[in-house]
Amino acid sequence: MHHTTEILLTLFIAYLVAIIFGEIAQRLKMPAVVGEIVAGCVIGPSLLGWITISEPLELFAELGAVLLLFSVGLETRVGELKKVGKEAIQVGVLGVILPFIFGGAWAYWMGFPTPKAMFVAAAFVATSAGITARVLQELGVLDQKEARVILGAAVIDDILAMLLLGVVSSLQGSDGINLWGILFTLAQALIFIGLVTVIGGKLMQKKSQMLEIPVNPLSPLTLSLALCLGLAVAASYIGLAAIIGAFLAGMVMAEAEQQHTLEKQLKPILELMVPFFFVVTGAKVALGELSSFSVLGTVLLVTVLATISKLVACGFGARSLGKRSALIIGFGMVPRGEVGIIVAALGLHSGVFSQSVYAIIIAMALLTAMIVPPVLKRLFAAN
Amino acid sequence: MHHTTEILLTLFIAYLVAIIFGEIAQRLKMPAVVGEIVAGCVIGPSLLGWITISEPLELFAELGAVLLLFSVGLETRVGELKKVGKEAIQVGVLGVILPFIFGGAWAYWMGFPTPKAMFVAAAFVATSAGITARVLQELGVLDQKEARVILGAAVIDDILAMLLLGVVSSLQGSDGINLWGILFTLAQALIFIGLVTVIGGKLMQKKSQMLEIPVNPLSPLTLSLALCLGLAVAASYIGLAAIIGAFLAGMVMAEAEQQHTLEKQLKPILELMVPFFFVVTGAKVALGELSSFSVLGTVLLVTVLATISKLVACGFGARSLGKRSALIIGFGMVPRGEVGIIVAALGLHSGVFSQSVYAIIIAMALLTAMIVPPVLKRLFAAN
Repeated sequence: MHHTTEILLTLFIAYLVAIIFGEIAQRLKMPAVVGEIVAGCVIGPSLLGWITISEPLELFAELGAVLLLFSVGLETRVGELKKVGKEAIQVGVLGVILPFIFGGAWAYWMGFPTPKAMFVAAAFVATSAGITARVLQELGVLDQKEARVILGAAVIDDILAMLLLGVVSSLQGSDGINLWGILFTLAQALIFIGLVTVIGGKLMQKKSQMLEIPVNPLSPLTLSLALCLGLAVAASYIGLAAIIGAFLAGMVMAEAEQQHTLEKQLKPILELMVPFFFVVTGAKVALGELSSFSVLGTVLLVTVLATISKLVACGFGARSLGKRSALIIGFGMVPRGEVGIIVAALGLHSGVFSQSVYAIIIAMALLTAMIVPPVLKRLFAAN
Repeated sequence: MHHTTEILLTLFIAYLVAIIFGEIAQRLKMPAVVGEIVAGCVIGPSLLGWITISEPLELFAELGAVLLLFSVGLETRVGELKKVGKEAIQVGVLGVILPFIFGGAWAYWMGFPTPKAMFVAAAFVATSAGITARVLQELGVLDQKEARVILGAAVIDDILAMLLLGVVSSLQGSDGINLWGILFTLAQALIFIGLVTVIGGKLMQKKSQMLEIPVNPLSPLTLSLALCLGLAVAASYIGLAAIIGAFLAGMVMAEAEQQHTLEKQLKPILELMVPFFFVVTGAKVALGELSSFSVLGTVLLVTVLATISKLVACGFGARSLGKRSALIIGFGMVPRGEVGIIVAALGLHSGVFSQSVYAIIIAMALLTAMIVPPVLKRLFAAN
């Protein structure tokens, strides 16, 4: 068979099975990403073997993640954070600290050296703003106080998670932990993030009409995509993850006048590219690693740790809003989804995670994303 | 440098330079594709060497071509062809026959064996509906009789060119020419095209609401993209070019109720993917092959043959509309652009074209696309 035909066939199978499983997941009231990852597990090398992970497919997956984080950034407006105020900041910050500690403790207990344990812990941190927003939208409660706090906190959470990922990923390769090294990396990441968002954001607020090129009505989109690729490369160069650059490019464009149009134009592109990321994520899970009872026990333990740490920290952060609201906000912050999965994929790719840890983290992300929607539905209905 | 970073860097450079050169071309009143191909020539291995042609980049280019032809198909409604009537059919059919004969004659004279000569001739055939439509749109004459005939004829031309490409590409590998072989391939291609468009088209006309999945507002797009990939693979399997399958998928979706929405949603995807096709096309041109006076003479000869054959055949086909209209229609059909370039890329990829023939065909496609816009502008202004 001709080589191009073979790759096109892989893309076709991956895409088709992803949308079918995504659809099934949604009918079962679960997020589509859950279905897409399961699709990857099923057609991947460890089960049916319908697709193999080739370089072109990996690039598609990588670009899917880059574009996805760009779109998350595009919904992250610094101005909005000021509005949701104190509770969102408390929920966001506490919701990063406690899961990081719990995750790190588990990784230590599993025998990881400090830098690797921190990487594992980073995969516990990030709430999936995407999944939560989708659930809140389907419940029709986006205008309620709890929903606004959750979404605001998810944004703070995303920024802190990116910062943390930048720090821990650059620490890999050294066996011990070096306080000056951490501070240097943190400073470098902060300067990069600060420079890009402050200068880029200001520029966009004042001069976003410069994106409009008369001969090309789609020029704002084209230029943002170029910025997204460019900052992804720049982030890679200074040792941060490419997706951090993409996220920052999104935050810069969120300040532009054309932000709303861009969001709309980005949707079809995400529809084409993002499923490849989740299918490849699933296809990389060595299901054999999950086949023993002891590992399934570990999956359960990790999921419980990840759930409780978010629930307690975020619920505590929102305690001033009353018990029921605190419970809703706590549960709303539990799903890990995209960002946790991206951290796990990075960990596997860079050799920090073993196949088994990767499989456990992905399973945890899937389970948290599956548990929360029905719980939130009941909590809101009990109003 | 990390491998993923390297590929992301290549994508970034290719995309950025493509949009800059595309913009420059448009300011010089030329189609953006001309700029994008020139960008590829400049940053490709034969000049600056900023990008190398790697497998992932080739896949991006291939998918760009597939999506582009899908969008051309999406604008090809069988019903529209009936409206433009006799003249469009005459212009379309004659405009395929004469350039095919001229191209074949030149290739024979250059010493190609029959099947290869037919492949070269196929690259002379297809008018770029995209470039012409864009120019007519910019001139604001899309509602005039000549414009409607040109666009109708360009559609017929596209279908015939795809059929021809299917036949000639499957003939490669045999040295002589076998009448039964041609008839068999033609029958196979006709059955595939017929079955897909008739059954698919009918299905879409009657049941296009089945594309609407309640949980996913973008489902018609997702399903069309899956159909596009699926038919591209199917076409590859029976020995036709993948782009033919994509084109047919587009024609099927053109009959759906959601055709208009799909066209709009496809634009951002094309904006991201298509430039890669043209940049890679340009980057593959071995500029060294064009550096002698004799080759430049050949480029000139081929361009003149390609121009005169379309102009005469299409002008003759439209003679009943009067001299000026025939002249406008004749010139309007001259630009080769996308489809001719895709045929050339296929020829190079499958080893039928030498580097030198490839460079000559691309140069011809560029020149015809550059000459026509100013000529059409004058002819319409002389009204």
